[in-house]
Amino acid sequence: MTEPAYTLHYAPDNASLIVRLALEELGLPYRTRLVDRRRAAQRAPAHLALNPAGLIPALETPDGPIFETGAILLWLADRHGDLIPPPRDPARTDALKWLFYLSNTLHPALRMLFYPSLYVGPDAAHQAQLRAQTRANILRHVAILEADCDPRGTPSVLDLYLAPMLRWLQLYPRESDRSWFELASFAKLHHMALMLEGRASTHAAQTAEGLGPTPFTAPQAPQPPEGTAT
Amino acid sequence: MTEPAYTLHYAPDNASLIVRLALEELGLPYRTRLVDRRRAAQRAPAHLALNPAGLIPALETPDGPIFETGAILLWLADRHGDLIPPPRDPARTDALKWLFYLSNTLHPALRMLFYPSLYVGPDAAHQAQLRAQTRANILRHVAILEADCDPRGTPSVLDLYLAPMLRWLQLYPRESDRSWFELASFAKLHHMALMLEGRASTHAAQTAEGLGPTPFTAPQAPQPPEGTAT
Repeated sequence: MTEPAYTLHYAPDNASLIVRLALEELGLPYRTRLVDRRRAAQRAPAHLALNPAGLIPALETPDGPIFETGAILLWLADRHGDLIPPPRDPARTDALKWLFYLSNTLHPALRMLFYPSLYVGPDAAHQAQLRAQTRANILRHVAILEADCDPRGTPSVLDLYLAPMLRWLQLYPRESDRSWFELASFAKLHHMALMLEGRASTHAAQTAEGLGPTPFTAPQAPQPPEGTAT
Repeated sequence: MTEPAYTLHYAPDNASLIVRLALEELGLPYRTRLVDRRRAAQRAPAHLALNPAGLIPALETPDGPIFETGAILLWLADRHGDLIPPPRDPARTDALKWLFYLSNTLHPALRMLFYPSLYVGPDAAHQAQLRAQTRANILRHVAILEADCDPRGTPSVLDLYLAPMLRWLQLYPRESDRSWFELASFAKLHHMALMLEGRASTHAAQTAEGLGPTPFTAPQAPQPPEGTAT
């Protein structure tokens, strides 16, 4: 038996979920290696050799390791499939601008919300202020996505990137009020999330990472078979 | 005379500078349209029609408008030139991961440093704390780039994206202490910035945006022929 070409370094319900969905959608054989967050394995030398920024995911490929969720999505889609219009397709402009927007605007805002100490240190008042403003920013970012969203029957890299982020906005931080974000307020994004929940790729991720039913439209805390989400 | 295929919506010494450098490197005819920051034209309806996020740059192309600096760079490089390895090249993995890293890690950190009110509101203490932690984060991000940097004789999209950010770290915010960031501490990045200063693309940008001599290694406040940087 040949080894799969791809090895996904993941933690359950982390950004690696986005890459798993893409690998599943593309029908690519892959294996996974748990990055044990309880031991901060993402900052251990073995993981830093794959991603010097110490973040999850990293994907080992026949062309070497690659990190950054958006970069991995784009690379896999260009190499294997039809999850994004190819370079000479006129629709490529739209796909790339929203892919970068998800990567450098919405995704960093989620990190500010979930890990405020990385941006303003340990003081509770500073953290509360960052979180309050970040929640308002996120609602603006998501409204911009909703306005541009053009629901289709099959997923793109944009859907695969966005749906898990919509999940996390409804689910994390566990200890805080999350009523400020209602996916149902964004009708087209909600429809896209429902569509993804019908895909075999989502079912595979649900099993592998213990995501439970309706992981995007009405998410519950994960019950992963190995590892921890935080 | 035919119209140029590209129109760059720019403000001097803004992120549009990165796109200008790429257009120049690729030898593409383009025209520019000033986004007048004094009138907050980036948030006026005409600009929001190009970029609903209200940010500079936007590039009009024969395939429609595109925004996000990283997306524009990648699109131009894939369409026209050799500023990035093509999709099936084994070096594509490295290029994409660092392009996204610049876009979603270093670039947002600069925005936090320059526009802290967007993240923590008007309070001076909150802003000071965000800036202090962001400076430390930026030094880590740049050290990671320095460690991976492989200086070459000709620029890539990564160099074109990074060199202006290194300029801005030495130059902005104008009113605050900037001694914390010394480009010379990062020998390989300094070498790359020097290499770019020898390129015709940089000379064209210096003239067009009033960047002065040594815009990347020893930058001075811009004296643009039109518009304002902030």
